Amino acid sequence: MLEPEGAIQTTGTWGLAARAGDMLFVAGMRGIDPQTNQLVDGDEARIRQAFTNMLHIAESAGAGPEDAVRLVVYVTDMYRYRPIANQIQEEIWGDGPYPPRTIIEVDRLNQDDIFEVEGTFYLGGR
Amino acid sequence: MLEPEGAIQTTGTWGLAARAGDMLFVAGMRGIDPQTNQLVDGDEARIRQAFTNMLHIAESAGAGPEDAVRLVVYVTDMYRYRPIANQIQEEIWGDGPYPPRTIIEVDRLNQDDIFEVEGTFYLGGR
Amino acid sequence: MLEPEGAIQTTGTWGLAARAGDMLFVAGMRGIDPQTNQLVDGDEARIRQAFTNMLHIAESAGAGPEDAVRLVVYVTDMYRYRPIANQIQEEIWGDGPYPPRTIIEVDRLNQDDIFEVEGTFYLGGR
Repeated sequence: MLEPEGAIQTTGTWGLAARAGDMLFVAGMRGIDPQTNQLVDGDEARIRQAFTNMLHIAESAGAGPEDAVRLVVYVTDMYRYRPIANQIQEEIWGDGPYPPRTIIEVDRLNQDDIFEVEGTFYLGGR
Repeated sequence: MLEPEGAIQTTGTWGLAARAGDMLFVAGMRGIDPQTNQLVDGDEARIRQAFTNMLHIAESAGAGPEDAVRLVVYVTDMYRYRPIANQIQEEIWGDGPYPPRTIIEVDRLNQDDIFEVEGTFYLGGR
Repeated sequence: MLEPEGAIQTTGTWGLAARAGDMLFVAGMRGIDPQTNQLVDGDEARIRQAFTNMLHIAESAGAGPEDAVRLVVYVTDMYRYRPIANQIQEEIWGDGPYPPRTIIEVDRLNQDDIFEVEGTFYLGGR
């Protein structure tokens, strides 16, 4: 299990990420500020923070955004949050290529949050 | 990232599939006609198309239905669409063995669609 | 595909688990009693059974709880079932480390069930 410096603190019965050979499985990340361990204010800022948290953990294992091989994005309002997720993914992945992504609107996330992204990374591509 | 000929066109910030060593991760596929990039009409035809789209991408990487090692099926009505998914999986996988599957009813899919299937394939079994 | 003795019986178009090299992908498990193939009564008992079913399959492939590299937990009521899931994970994983987990409240599970857990295990860590 990975617990890199600067990552959010896990407060429950889960870990941030686990390696399996050349694969890195990161837990679903939400927009929690690692400084305060509180949710970031503002939809866009919070969604950006979720990606940042995921990529920070990946980076600690030597993986960058281009090593993402699978994303699942959970939102609580497809029309409201999908465009923001798209915008932030453009900031991160630029002209691409983009990782495969599945996006779903669900009933509820932990802490009644609005957005969660789960990423899988490949460490053997370098 | 894979962009095989004859596959649907991605129109957003996502790719169709990515390889990670012997693993192939395909993005959630819906029943979009690759000729027109529009949703197919009819529940059964649309659900069949979603599987077809997934398997087409897998095929382009050298994987068949029997190489699927994980499926997640998202429906917007469990009672209505699960039986159709089962029927189409029977068409594809016949007497089995069948891949492990998790099926969930969610609030909403992109484009207010009814069905999405996300598949992971193993390329090292041949 | 794995069909270990003592596991639940699959009754539809899905398998219990599949290996992919050193990875083991287990289908979403619910609290079905493998003796009767019926849902277990009681929230806590049913959720414990879901984990038991998952771990039984993993064990048959040589993997223990500490080899879990990814969990996705689906509940139909976050406030009601997440604390129970946490408690049972404490029983299983003790002081940790805990596998990365993503937890989501969804509209509906098969058989109108309350809880499902999908696990991925790494067989190469031993």
